[in-house]
Amino acid sequence: MTEPPSTPPTIGVFDSGFGGLTVLRALIARAPQARYSFIGDTARLPYGSKSRRTIARYAAQSARFLVEEQGADYLVIACNTASALALDAIQDAVSVPVLGVIEPGATAARAASTTGDVLVIATDATVQSHAYKASCAAQNLRAFEKACPLLVPLVEEGWINHHVTDAVVRIYLGELTSDAAASGMSADTLVLGCTHYPLLRPLIERAAPRGITVIDSAESTADAAVALLNGPATSADPVNELTQALTMDLDPSPEPFIKCFATDSVEKFERLGSRFLGRPTGKVQLVDLGG
Amino acid sequence: MTEPPSTPPTIGVFDSGFGGLTVLRALIARAPQARYSFIGDTARLPYGSKSRRTIARYAAQSARFLVEEQGADYLVIACNTASALALDAIQDAVSVPVLGVIEPGATAARAASTTGDVLVIATDATVQSHAYKASCAAQNLRAFEKACPLLVPLVEEGWINHHVTDAVVRIYLGELTSDAAASGMSADTLVLGCTHYPLLRPLIERAAPRGITVIDSAESTADAAVALLNGPATSADPVNELTQALTMDLDPSPEPFIKCFATDSVEKFERLGSRFLGRPTGKVQLVDLGG
Repeated sequence: MTEPPSTPPTIGVFDSGFGGLTVLRALIARAPQARYSFIGDTARLPYGSKSRRTIARYAAQSARFLVEEQGADYLVIACNTASALALDAIQDAVSVPVLGVIEPGATAARAASTTGDVLVIATDATVQSHAYKASCAAQNLRAFEKACPLLVPLVEEGWINHHVTDAVVRIYLGELTSDAAASGMSADTLVLGCTHYPLLRPLIERAAPRGITVIDSAESTADAAVALLNGPATSADPVNELTQALTMDLDPSPEPFIKCFATDSVEKFERLGSRFLGRPTGKVQLVDLGG
Repeated sequence: MTEPPSTPPTIGVFDSGFGGLTVLRALIARAPQARYSFIGDTARLPYGSKSRRTIARYAAQSARFLVEEQGADYLVIACNTASALALDAIQDAVSVPVLGVIEPGATAARAASTTGDVLVIATDATVQSHAYKASCAAQNLRAFEKACPLLVPLVEEGWINHHVTDAVVRIYLGELTSDAAASGMSADTLVLGCTHYPLLRPLIERAAPRGITVIDSAESTADAAVALLNGPATSADPVNELTQALTMDLDPSPEPFIKCFATDSVEKFERLGSRFLGRPTGKVQLVDLGG
């Protein structure tokens, strides 16, 4: 058995904004010893209205920044739109393992569902890509997707526990469940297909039909990342080195090592980011990726 | 007196999205004989989170497209953010007269207000620029500005006459009027500092304090554009030619000549644009401005 590396490997986490900090939060809870570099491409968000080609170009730039300039050994694409439309392009752009959020969400839904019928709420762009539908179908699940475009602005306004947000969630979920039932589905699982939505989970659980299991794609992705890190590997393999590093005896409550970068609006990132991360983001550094 | 030109001049109208179609609608109502080219830079919206440098670069590209490729003789910047942050850069980029939306809004507020105290609602970026505050101060008005970031998403969701939107408008206006009063202002005028807000005018008027005059910057800008066109000019001046063209005897209800362009999401533009324009946009053409 080789020596564990002296410093733990770095996990790069990418989002178009700061919603992906919910994925980083879930990763830290599972692997607090790892080093994390997070970039939010805030100058060019939202990706939702952009073409696949443009999203792929932007996402590849951020991925290369994390690998080439921050030394990331693994990438987690904590953005549903980029995962839905550009995962292949990102994998082509870098030489480290890359994990998106869509497939972990679908896998968790497969584990949770007994009827095989799944509801998905997401942004307009993610729904239009039908990436969840395809990933669910590959696991023999039927998915009914609904875009909920007001939820991200409501979270960004800070109306997390607010009667207006409660009303909006009830309208969206009411339409979703009645439309899904009308098309003959008996869904027992609801996937939160946007990294902003976990902040609304209490409201969503109250508004969802009784007995529905809510799947948080941030949690599922963090689980999948840890499973990837713990997967079969030889001792010469960096995955194994990371596994060793993550299981080293360490301070039981270490302060996590996090560096956050944004392409614009550093102040807004620091102000809103802590809501998603569940702790202060620390000083966010401005990065110019061009474009 | 010289002959009127055989075809009326072209007015180029620019917005980051399609909210500026409310300005185009107001222009058509005043000058139905003019030709209009409208471009929405939908691939790069919203401008709100971007830096002044980036906004100036993007806006100048659209302005040059309208002048150099569409032959616009006049430009109307129907975007509060671009008007607030990049009017100078646009004026430097092209050689035709350029009109923004901020100053006409402030001028209309000056005409309407007797107390000299004015409320302004706008997007986050427009409020942060304090462009309305500065433009109002230049006219000896005190302005109290409030960002209302949920109103654009609510309009884009189509919730124009909706109880949720009504609740949101009442919350924003309640906070605005009490904060303004607490700072010693006695406002009698409310400026709609975003081209999406005119669609919510009935809700806003119901929620505003009694006796407040609501100023629609789209209407004010169209008034200012027509005043510019009718201003003093020699017969060799294109402004005078335009004035002549606009006052030619024509079919009393001509179908307006409108060409619409977008940098992405042509389908969404066509679907939502008619709400703002008050008539179908016609076929929208995709344009690549780079970036």
